[in-house]
Amino acid sequence: MGNFSGMIGSKVVLDAALEHGTPFYLYDEQAIAGNCRRLLAMPNAYGLTVRYAMKANSNRSILKIISRQGLKIDASSMNEARRAAAAGIPYKDIILTTQEVPCDGEMLSLQEMIKSGLKYNVCSLRQLFNIGDFAAANKVALAIRIHPGVGSGESASRNTGDNYSCFGIHLYDLDKALGFAKEKGIVFDHVHIHIGSGGDPIAWRDNIDLELNIIERHFPDALTASFGGGLKVARMPDEEAADIEGLGRYAKERLEGFFQKTNRRLEMEVEPGNYVVALAGFIVTRVIDKKKTGGDGLNFLVLDGGMELNTRPLLYAARHPFYVVSKSGDLLYSDFDDAGGHSAGSYTAVPVGKCCETGDSQSLDSAGLNLPRKMAEPEVGDFFVIGGAGAYCSSMSPMNYNSHVQAAEVLYSPGGLQVIRRRQSLEQLMANEA
Amino acid sequence: MGNFSGMIGSKVVLDAALEHGTPFYLYDEQAIAGNCRRLLAMPNAYGLTVRYAMKANSNRSILKIISRQGLKIDASSMNEARRAAAAGIPYKDIILTTQEVPCDGEMLSLQEMIKSGLKYNVCSLRQLFNIGDFAAANKVALAIRIHPGVGSGESASRNTGDNYSCFGIHLYDLDKALGFAKEKGIVFDHVHIHIGSGGDPIAWRDNIDLELNIIERHFPDALTASFGGGLKVARMPDEEAADIEGLGRYAKERLEGFFQKTNRRLEMEVEPGNYVVALAGFIVTRVIDKKKTGGDGLNFLVLDGGMELNTRPLLYAARHPFYVVSKSGDLLYSDFDDAGGHSAGSYTAVPVGKCCETGDSQSLDSAGLNLPRKMAEPEVGDFFVIGGAGAYCSSMSPMNYNSHVQAAEVLYSPGGLQVIRRRQSLEQLMANEA
Repeated sequence: MGNFSGMIGSKVVLDAALEHGTPFYLYDEQAIAGNCRRLLAMPNAYGLTVRYAMKANSNRSILKIISRQGLKIDASSMNEARRAAAAGIPYKDIILTTQEVPCDGEMLSLQEMIKSGLKYNVCSLRQLFNIGDFAAANKVALAIRIHPGVGSGESASRNTGDNYSCFGIHLYDLDKALGFAKEKGIVFDHVHIHIGSGGDPIAWRDNIDLELNIIERHFPDALTASFGGGLKVARMPDEEAADIEGLGRYAKERLEGFFQKTNRRLEMEVEPGNYVVALAGFIVTRVIDKKKTGGDGLNFLVLDGGMELNTRPLLYAARHPFYVVSKSGDLLYSDFDDAGGHSAGSYTAVPVGKCCETGDSQSLDSAGLNLPRKMAEPEVGDFFVIGGAGAYCSSMSPMNYNSHVQAAEVLYSPGGLQVIRRRQSLEQLMANEA
Repeated sequence: MGNFSGMIGSKVVLDAALEHGTPFYLYDEQAIAGNCRRLLAMPNAYGLTVRYAMKANSNRSILKIISRQGLKIDASSMNEARRAAAAGIPYKDIILTTQEVPCDGEMLSLQEMIKSGLKYNVCSLRQLFNIGDFAAANKVALAIRIHPGVGSGESASRNTGDNYSCFGIHLYDLDKALGFAKEKGIVFDHVHIHIGSGGDPIAWRDNIDLELNIIERHFPDALTASFGGGLKVARMPDEEAADIEGLGRYAKERLEGFFQKTNRRLEMEVEPGNYVVALAGFIVTRVIDKKKTGGDGLNFLVLDGGMELNTRPLLYAARHPFYVVSKSGDLLYSDFDDAGGHSAGSYTAVPVGKCCETGDSQSLDSAGLNLPRKMAEPEVGDFFVIGGAGAYCSSMSPMNYNSHVQAAEVLYSPGGLQVIRRRQSLEQLMANEA
C-alpha cells in the first residue's frame, strides 16, 4: 500500500518542495479516489452507504474529492457539518454524530440543518430529550448511537465501546430512550454502534451480531444499520490492514440472515476516516541539521517540521513510513520495497522536529523514548518524507506550538500540483490577540 | 498554591462566562506577577536573569505582564522572537535557543535580530558554523547550549539531556566547536545547559557542578551561566513544587566557590515557563451532558471544551485540579481545601470533552484509560474549571480538532476582565483553504 512510488514519487516531492517550500502536507487525489472506490465495492446485501469520518482530514478540497466519489459525510461537530456544507455537500448527505449538546442559537442552527436534510444521530439521552419535540412536530426520523457496553480492546482506539468511554446511549439507558420516543412518537430509522474494532474480524462480527440483535428486539422502524468505522490501514510494511472485502462478506451474510428471519432489508453503513485518506497523505520536510549524541549515542536528523504537523508518534507511539529523497529528487530510501529505494545499510537515525520539546520526534517507543530507525543517510538539505500522514495529522496536531505557523496542504492530481490550504502567516497567528 | 480562592474565585468565573461564553482560558495577572517576583527573589551571588520560556504561553498580553515584572525572554523559534518583539520587548532582552537552522531569508532576519541585540544561543555545530563569519565580523559574542550527555530522568521531561535527546552541542563535539570559534575569533560569553531537572535538588546540583566545571575548563570568556528551566510546579495538592529558594541558595554557594577558585564572577540565569504561568491559568467550561456507563459503570461529565484546550492528560497523563462552580457562581467543589469547596462525598466522575476521540478526557491514567475523580456532582449548565492550565495548554493543544475553533483567552486583573485573544471564527479557521 505504499502510494509513494506508484503515485506521488520523488520527482513530485521535489517539484512541490521547490514551488511551495517545506514543510507541507502532500495528498494524492488518485489514491484517495481509489480508496473510496474500494470502500464502495464492499460486499453488501441491500445497499451500502460509506460515510467519510471527516475529523480525519477536513480540508475542503479533500471533502470535495471524496464526495465526488459517492461517499457521504460523518460529521462529529456542528462545525464539521458547516465545513462539509461549505464544500458544497448537501445536508442530506451528512450525519451528525457528536458529543456536543446544542443549545440556544446552536439548537436553532441544528434544527435548520435537520430541516435541510441533515441526519441527527442522538448520542445521549439529553440530546434525544432536547430534540424530541422538534423531531416529533416535524416528523423527522432520528438516528441513534448505542453504547454497547463492550469494547474491542484495539489499542489504537483503546476503550471505545466499553464502560471506560461514553459515546452513545448506553444499553442501560435504552429503555428510557425508547420510552421517551414512544411517548413523543419519534421514529428511529437508523441504528449506529461503533466500537473501534480496527477491522479485527472477531470484534467486527461480534459487533454486527450484537447490533442486529438489538435492532431486531428494539428498533422495528430501522432501515439502516451503521457498523461504525475505525477500519485499520497498514501504514508500515509489517502492519495488516482491515480486510474490508472479508468484513463486507460477513456483514452481507448476517444482513441476509436478518432478512430471512424478520423479512426486513437493512441497508449497511460504514464510516471510515483513516481508510480513506491516511495512506494518501505525506509530510514533506527538509533535513536542516544532523547530530550525534556521543560516540555510542544516537544519530538525529532535525527536520523542519515535526510534532506540529504529526503528533501521532507522541500520542500513540504510531509508526509512519519514511522516504529519503535527495536534493535533486532521487529516492535514496523507502520503508516500502516497492518504492524502489536503495537498501538501508547499517545507518539508523531518529528524525525529530524543530520544536524545543523532547517528544517532538517521528519515532518514539511506547515509553516515549526516541527509537532509531534504519534508513539511508541523508545530507542536510535532502528531503525527508513521512508517509501515512493523510489522517489525524493536519486535523489534530498542535499546529502553532513554538509559534510555528500552520503548514500548507498541497494536492497532487493528474492535472498537477495545487495548494489546497495556504501556509498560515504569523500575522494570522497573532490576529486575534488584543 | 491554589490561586482559585484567593485570586480568580467563582464569582469571577461566573462574570467571565456570562460575558464571554464558554469555553475559554482565564488568566490571573496578579498570580503571574507574583510568580515573577518570587523567581526574581531567588538567592544569587553575582546577579540573576530570569528568562521566561515563552513556548509555555506566548500570548502578547501575557508576555507584556511578565516583561513589565523584569523577566527577559527565552524564545525557542524565530517566530517566538518576533512575537516577543511584537509585544514591545526589545531584542536585547531575548535569547534565541532553537532547533531551527535559519537559511536564506531567515538567516538575514536572524542577523538583523542579532544586530538589534538578540542573544543567539548556538545549539548545534551547524548553527555555529553558519553564524560564524557574521559573529566574527560583527564582534558579536555568542551563547552556547551544551548537551551534557546525562539527563535528569524526570518523567515530565523524560530524556532531555541524555543521549536520547539532541538539544545542544554534545560534549563529544565540544572540541570541534571550540576549535572553530578559536579559528574565527568567536567569543562565548554565555553557557547554557538545560536537563529538565524539574527542580529535583540532586539533578539541579549535579547539573550546576558539571556546568561550572565545563565553564572553568573551556570557557574563559563566559560571564553568564544558564542553568536552564523546567522548574516544577505543584498543580495538585499532593504534588511538590521546586524549592526555588533552596535551588537558588545552592547555585549561589557554588558560584561563590567558583569565584574563590577562579576570581570570576558569573551571573546566573534560569529560564522557567511552567513556574511563571501554569498555576495562574484556568480553563472555564460548562457541563453540557452527564452520562453513566451502566449500573456499575463510570460517571461522565461532558464539558464544552476538552483536549483541544488541554491535551496534557492525553500526552502525559497529567493531573489538573478541578473546581465545580454552580450556575449562580457558588463554589461547589475544589481539589484544594483552601479554596473552600464543599467536601466531595462519594461522587466520582470522568470529565471529558466534546471531541469524538477516546482520549478526549481531562483524567487519564498512564495506560490512557479514563480515571474517575472525586468531586461534588454538578448539574448540566454548571461550570467546570480546570486549574494549572496557564502553561502548555493554549500553546500546544490541537486547537482545531473536530473543527472546533481556538478558544478565547481572558485576563483577570484588578482592573477587571479583558479579552486578550478573541475566540477564533469558523471563517478564520477556513480562510486559507483554497
